[in-house]
Amino acid sequence: MVKKMKKDIEQYGLALAKNSKKAAQIVRVLPLEIRNRVLLLAAKKLRQEVPAILKANAKDIESSINLISEAMIDRLTLSPDSIEAMAKGVEEIAAFDDPLNKVLEEKTLDNGMTLSRVAVPIGSVFFIYESRPNVTIDGAALCFKSGNAVILRGGKESIHSSTLLANIFRSALKENDIDENAVQLVNTPDRSLMTNLLQMTAYIDLVIPRGGENLIKTVVEQSRIPVIKHFNGICHIYIDKSADMTKVAPILVNAKTQRVGVCNAMECVLINRDIDDKAVEAFIAPLREKGVEMLGDAEAQKRVPGVQDIGEDSNYHREYLALKMNVKFVEDAADACEHIEKYSSRHTDAIIAEDQAIQDYFVKNVDSSSVMVNASTRFADGGEYGLGAEVGISTDKLHARGPMGVESLCTYKWVLRGNGQIRS
Amino acid sequence: MVKKMKKDIEQYGLALAKNSKKAAQIVRVLPLEIRNRVLLLAAKKLRQEVPAILKANAKDIESSINLISEAMIDRLTLSPDSIEAMAKGVEEIAAFDDPLNKVLEEKTLDNGMTLSRVAVPIGSVFFIYESRPNVTIDGAALCFKSGNAVILRGGKESIHSSTLLANIFRSALKENDIDENAVQLVNTPDRSLMTNLLQMTAYIDLVIPRGGENLIKTVVEQSRIPVIKHFNGICHIYIDKSADMTKVAPILVNAKTQRVGVCNAMECVLINRDIDDKAVEAFIAPLREKGVEMLGDAEAQKRVPGVQDIGEDSNYHREYLALKMNVKFVEDAADACEHIEKYSSRHTDAIIAEDQAIQDYFVKNVDSSSVMVNASTRFADGGEYGLGAEVGISTDKLHARGPMGVESLCTYKWVLRGNGQIRS
Repeated sequence: MVKKMKKDIEQYGLALAKNSKKAAQIVRVLPLEIRNRVLLLAAKKLRQEVPAILKANAKDIESSINLISEAMIDRLTLSPDSIEAMAKGVEEIAAFDDPLNKVLEEKTLDNGMTLSRVAVPIGSVFFIYESRPNVTIDGAALCFKSGNAVILRGGKESIHSSTLLANIFRSALKENDIDENAVQLVNTPDRSLMTNLLQMTAYIDLVIPRGGENLIKTVVEQSRIPVIKHFNGICHIYIDKSADMTKVAPILVNAKTQRVGVCNAMECVLINRDIDDKAVEAFIAPLREKGVEMLGDAEAQKRVPGVQDIGEDSNYHREYLALKMNVKFVEDAADACEHIEKYSSRHTDAIIAEDQAIQDYFVKNVDSSSVMVNASTRFADGGEYGLGAEVGISTDKLHARGPMGVESLCTYKWVLRGNGQIRS
Repeated sequence: MVKKMKKDIEQYGLALAKNSKKAAQIVRVLPLEIRNRVLLLAAKKLRQEVPAILKANAKDIESSINLISEAMIDRLTLSPDSIEAMAKGVEEIAAFDDPLNKVLEEKTLDNGMTLSRVAVPIGSVFFIYESRPNVTIDGAALCFKSGNAVILRGGKESIHSSTLLANIFRSALKENDIDENAVQLVNTPDRSLMTNLLQMTAYIDLVIPRGGENLIKTVVEQSRIPVIKHFNGICHIYIDKSADMTKVAPILVNAKTQRVGVCNAMECVLINRDIDDKAVEAFIAPLREKGVEMLGDAEAQKRVPGVQDIGEDSNYHREYLALKMNVKFVEDAADACEHIEKYSSRHTDAIIAEDQAIQDYFVKNVDSSSVMVNASTRFADGGEYGLGAEVGISTDKLHARGPMGVESLCTYKWVLRGNGQIRS
């Protein structure tokens, strides 16, 4: 019995992967006009199907209530407004410039040939995400706009909503006579299916996992396919002694408390030792008033009232995603960079300083995907960077780094046009 | 005893990886001027050490003779000329524009902040290659120029030459007061060390394997670190009925015979069925005269004298790297693209055609890193593309595709400069 199921899952996985590869061959050559027509139709259908979507979503919520956290229920829940936002998001993606067929580089070689480097789709993308039904539509729309086929695997709690949303997108494909398998949704939360798909190097070109640390670690361990990770954000803000002190409190409060459960929230403030206690208190007090718990070493406990013992150094690695943060005093920008090198997740780190040389030192020495000068870490975001909707925020260094827009779903090919040239 | 050795190797691997990460932090911020100074000194030292290099190389050849193929001995062997070429290569790399700190994109956001995307090094690179001592110097110079630290692992047959060459580069680093561990050479061919290093995600950012199919498969299976593969080249040339027949024979002969053992050599010719026997014979005869063996299905055997039975269809997957090739007749460009989709390694594929619409169809539908129109597949090469020395030819789709120059050893970071902005 178990053996039979395992075989079924294997066959289902292989079918998904093969279908995706086949569909990828079709969508990679679709003209922009047709891709946009599908997107606009999908947006229209989303608006038409509001009642059905809400009904499917209610089913998901009903089965999950009391089983998952309130924050997760919140992410899972759709409303007429959030469905309208989804439809608008798809229309915005339709309005994007075409990321495909762009000539990225072009030159004439000495032997008279023309060489160009042209943007092309990656192929088939396996997109793994949380129980957020709206990401189903974002993922489908972004991959399709960039000429990729996608296999979507949402969290199990959102299965009814996500299935319906994927089917709405598929019907927009079908009505335009395009292989519906350009967008497929995995119909089972079975982990063995995921494991299976992660071996399919012949059919799948890229895996993008989002979600919890354990899920991402599992994906990286199991995958034979290249992975771009949206990992956690252990973001730091260093306050230099040259800082304009009027800027510090607003930035810290924004970075820590404006939205707590997000990857670009600050988790640790690094304070230059030369800043006096009164100035420190001036930017710490507003955080305390917001209810932020603070942890630190002996020095931090001595200098900042209310700081609790951080315990093990490994706690500097923690991503609290809560009204909680670490406080540490450092000697200078070099010392701050050293701490960041050791504990940052290379997502986003910031400096508050007026001294230009110190700003530059920090920007150059911090090896994170986003480095902020005199601004909140919360700005690390595809929308803020003008990329339109984002697939995620890459904490990897290869291919795409930081907020990933539609261009990060493209690669390139070299095209060499000659007139019979041979190599000597 | 075995256990002790295993532990030694683990410790050695960890030391290599930690050293590399530490050196990466230093070299990533070195000014161009210093990086070039090191390169020029390394070139000078190579010239000074010709006798010692030849002596080390003689040791390698002596231990390998009769154990490896003549072609491999040929790749292993250095001469005063090839050492001079190495020195010149390093000087050329010194003359390259700086791939680092380039502003790839820059804009002012609505809230007044400036956002830029800046080229930065990847970090620590683990470069695995064949028994070609000159690649030691290429790898060291390209990684150092691009601000990366590198762990080099050459084939075991070249251990004496490669060790000396790496040490020459290291002495150029040392004389400039730069951490020598920016360039490290693995001192043992032990596979368990490689396996070990491939797990070190905390210290190594990228793995570039070159070499045999099995080695690369092993690396992909074992690595938890992102890999860019230089895999095999199963390159096709499709001859359309619109081809200028005077161009066909020279291109085919060049692509198949100019250098036989290379990845951009042609392995299969696809011939449009409508081309008559006489025209076919006109371009096949010169290949036959060069001693090229030909294999094909019943149709190819019937239409082309001397074609042997190819047997299983899976033989279309073969990379011969010899005076041997497959011949197949196809209905049209679409049929050719279908064959290529199925059997190509996505390295380089070419069309010979005068009809522009058919050229465009082929360029768009062939999903290979290089697509050639009316030119030999042999042009797929970093030197030919004007990239300077190349790290390899990526058969992957992510990050870098096709010939990989020094820019493919860089990634980017986003830098956001504000004036106290917070997110609303």
